[in-house]
Amino acid sequence: MKDYELTITKFLQRAVDLFSHKEIVSKLSDGSLHRYTYADAYERICQLAHALDDYGLELGDRVSVMAVNHYRHYELYFGPSCSGRSIHTTNHRLPEHHLTEIINEAEDRLLFVDPAFVETAEAVADDLETVEQYVVLDDEVPETSLDPVVDYESFIAGYDTEYDWPELDEEREFALCYTSGTTGLPKGVQYRHRRMFLHTLVHGHVDVFGVSENDTVMPVVPMFHVNGWGFPYSGTFYGSKLVLPGQHTSPEAVADLIAAEDVTVAAAVPTVWIDMDSYLESSESEPLESLDRVLTGGSAPPASLMQKFEEVYEAPIYQGYGMTEASPHLANTFETTQMQDLPDEEGYELKRKAGIPAPGAQIRLRTQDGEPVPHDGDTPGEIHARSPWLTDGYFKRPEANESSFEDGWFKTGDIGTIDEYGYLDIVDRIDDAIKSGGEWISSVELEISLIDADGVGEAAVIAAPHEKWQERPVAFVVTEDDSIDEASLREHLLETFPKWWLPDVFRFVDEIPKTTTQKFNKKDLRDQFIEEEGELPLEQ
Amino acid sequence: MKDYELTITKFLQRAVDLFSHKEIVSKLSDGSLHRYTYADAYERICQLAHALDDYGLELGDRVSVMAVNHYRHYELYFGPSCSGRSIHTTNHRLPEHHLTEIINEAEDRLLFVDPAFVETAEAVADDLETVEQYVVLDDEVPETSLDPVVDYESFIAGYDTEYDWPELDEEREFALCYTSGTTGLPKGVQYRHRRMFLHTLVHGHVDVFGVSENDTVMPVVPMFHVNGWGFPYSGTFYGSKLVLPGQHTSPEAVADLIAAEDVTVAAAVPTVWIDMDSYLESSESEPLESLDRVLTGGSAPPASLMQKFEEVYEAPIYQGYGMTEASPHLANTFETTQMQDLPDEEGYELKRKAGIPAPGAQIRLRTQDGEPVPHDGDTPGEIHARSPWLTDGYFKRPEANESSFEDGWFKTGDIGTIDEYGYLDIVDRIDDAIKSGGEWISSVELEISLIDADGVGEAAVIAAPHEKWQERPVAFVVTEDDSIDEASLREHLLETFPKWWLPDVFRFVDEIPKTTTQKFNKKDLRDQFIEEEGELPLEQ
Repeated sequence: MKDYELTITKFLQRAVDLFSHKEIVSKLSDGSLHRYTYADAYERICQLAHALDDYGLELGDRVSVMAVNHYRHYELYFGPSCSGRSIHTTNHRLPEHHLTEIINEAEDRLLFVDPAFVETAEAVADDLETVEQYVVLDDEVPETSLDPVVDYESFIAGYDTEYDWPELDEEREFALCYTSGTTGLPKGVQYRHRRMFLHTLVHGHVDVFGVSENDTVMPVVPMFHVNGWGFPYSGTFYGSKLVLPGQHTSPEAVADLIAAEDVTVAAAVPTVWIDMDSYLESSESEPLESLDRVLTGGSAPPASLMQKFEEVYEAPIYQGYGMTEASPHLANTFETTQMQDLPDEEGYELKRKAGIPAPGAQIRLRTQDGEPVPHDGDTPGEIHARSPWLTDGYFKRPEANESSFEDGWFKTGDIGTIDEYGYLDIVDRIDDAIKSGGEWISSVELEISLIDADGVGEAAVIAAPHEKWQERPVAFVVTEDDSIDEASLREHLLETFPKWWLPDVFRFVDEIPKTTTQKFNKKDLRDQFIEEEGELPLEQ
Repeated sequence: MKDYELTITKFLQRAVDLFSHKEIVSKLSDGSLHRYTYADAYERICQLAHALDDYGLELGDRVSVMAVNHYRHYELYFGPSCSGRSIHTTNHRLPEHHLTEIINEAEDRLLFVDPAFVETAEAVADDLETVEQYVVLDDEVPETSLDPVVDYESFIAGYDTEYDWPELDEEREFALCYTSGTTGLPKGVQYRHRRMFLHTLVHGHVDVFGVSENDTVMPVVPMFHVNGWGFPYSGTFYGSKLVLPGQHTSPEAVADLIAAEDVTVAAAVPTVWIDMDSYLESSESEPLESLDRVLTGGSAPPASLMQKFEEVYEAPIYQGYGMTEASPHLANTFETTQMQDLPDEEGYELKRKAGIPAPGAQIRLRTQDGEPVPHDGDTPGEIHARSPWLTDGYFKRPEANESSFEDGWFKTGDIGTIDEYGYLDIVDRIDDAIKSGGEWISSVELEISLIDADGVGEAAVIAAPHEKWQERPVAFVVTEDDSIDEASLREHLLETFPKWWLPDVFRFVDEIPKTTTQKFNKKDLRDQFIEEEGELPLEQ
């Protein structure tokens, strides 16, 4: 044992020692607000830990949680982990066979489930080999075939509201989360106390997200999705007021909650902010007045949206770049000295990028052959990452570890460029990039440009097999305007790209299929295109 | 070896990867400014590491440095440490026999010395048992008896400007610093890579010092004094422009440098800011325009000074509480949500305190018998501290470790109170507190009140032995005004304190003796008083 182990128990202790009076507010399924303090939460977390002891859960055992963002989910972030167990957060939108596989692989012994997801749990329950007990996150058990089942309030009721937290080894797992890859089975990432301690320290940085005691933090991003990007932990460590929106993530609901609770920091994927902009355009009110900054990630928001949030709503968008394997944070945008001297347009061009590696994170670019790529802002390479909070390997996947790690660096599968000042730009996924005649064409850059064209709603670009060039781009476009045709789009793209980058085929569709995490499902698109068209011929 | 060791080498690599164009500016002994970039510094740090290899310095060996703040001292912060050696920073103002003892105890093999301190080195050289080589921090060697001796530029000249830094164990010592206790021999504190990594992560926090790439950071505090409070490290990790003032620490020189280099953050002990205020009062210029915040520590600044810096100079003072053993940071003031709602006067009353423990640091209060003390803002107790960057024990002092550590907590020897919101207030040193009839009288509180009286320049209060009460306070006062007498001071103190707190004796003196770190030398005062007066009689 070290003289000070870096464990997430320290977050909880700091909150209750220094900020016990600060609030955690949850919007419940019936739309009502539940509010209590860190002191209240702490007592129930202690009760939960005692209940797990009493149940017979051993050190290192795991529990599943299938829930949206609310105070009981928050309690589950600490009760199991701080008492030496691990919480496996599951995405209820996964295909059923994925859910079954990951819960069985994780050997979860209890499953905590929101009333709204009881049906999902019922659908997989027969195939769950290790789950012994279901706990419904409510004060009563609904009509259900789950068995044995108990409600959460009864589960923790009557236990002592103090707990003697064990000194845990900082390399102990405190949580497990699976990547929702678009190809193949999800892969588990074990989160370890030390790594989340360091990840959380970085969240408080003025050049990262600057999470502060002064903030009211609302993770709209689901708590089952990569530690809710870490905000439930950093909010706790820094004593921020926390606002948990439950399933109420529509623009109107998010805007109302921001206004009602004076939220200063809200974190969500770009689509939430795109929809928010549309909503605000049609609304008379100014609900974002308290909002100081917007944190987003997962994919790059349009530069126009970033400018609008900064200049009109006065809540600048900060980009984060990360991934499940990295807890998730690796890099982020912030206004550097250099940017302050740039004209607006160039400044937004930099802010649109993935940003600067966070303190402790390191990024390098490599060719497919493993050679270094120059940091010229132009030459793309695969992004390799290191950081003291990045995973040390996938759970029970030695073959994936073999291919994903090299000299202590994690091969992210993302393709990027780095400019002379260290700004990282994500150009593509290796899986999505189009290898045309030995060169890479970025499907992402084509998509961004297509969406920028007037009258285009959505656009996805895939790699179609080609008999000469190996692969060529094919575009799927959702239009909002009948005047859009292939000729006008080709003309639009030619303003930015060389002729050989232009898609060989444009398909106009009503919608683009999405994955459970609302990314374009390019795998489905590609499979379907190949089934229908086969290999593209030479003369296209 | 871990997959990512928390070493200070990461600071250097980040600076050169991302902020290579940012500047380090040093004011040299002749008053001229030396400026170069992190890229330039990096090349010379690599050369220095090669020079140490070539010299035959082994992993773990130590070098002494006796220097003020400038770029060569900065290079010595990284070259030895990142190549696996350790830098022992020495305070040239120590008594000669202390210097000899600590350099011998540390077994330093090289001694790097400023030309200005060559005489000091010469005075002790005959007694240094392990120093083999002197290196003068200049481009030529002055007339000196030091032998063998070489100038720094010749020492590093010609070596490769790249270096393959070793992967070091994060618990390896990178620096050694001795406490300058007012009683007894200095005790050495070994700083370890992991601990400074964590200390530095906390420096970037918006609720701590918020060190940012946007900042221009000037440590006025000497770099031989507890890692320059950590600013040379945090400035590097976050890519701040660094300004090193050399020996030019007069109010006028500091003000000029702030203005010339657009310094945003300056760190120095309170006396610097007290003198700065007097200087600015008599000056026509407004040199602090760029200054965003002032960091201070070591002793509490007067509330009136804090208010003036915030409201007149628009550079609020943030208090830090720490010590050599803690690298040094433990707690700091910041504007919490609660303070925003308080009237000005109460707000400044909180800002004057030592503040809130930094994320990861923990503070508790204990009675002399080891019993918990309530957090009521009123009851004093000894401050015990834990943090992941606090030392794990004194260097070669098993008996001091025995008495200074308890259950993993460090007994600071400071007496404090903690209020219900966790604000720590330093009331006294255990050594300085006056034990009168079983109660503690705070010498520090009496001093603060005396200084607040019109016409009082300095005031020190000591504990004099008393035949009945065990100890009683005696005040030494420097007046700026002939109208001040004992009666007026007693009247002034009675506005705040009970009668039994008032000093039994007031002595009006021309000056108060100071230690080498500019603290009141209460030990000398006390020894002299006892020699002259003996035990105080009953009727006083």
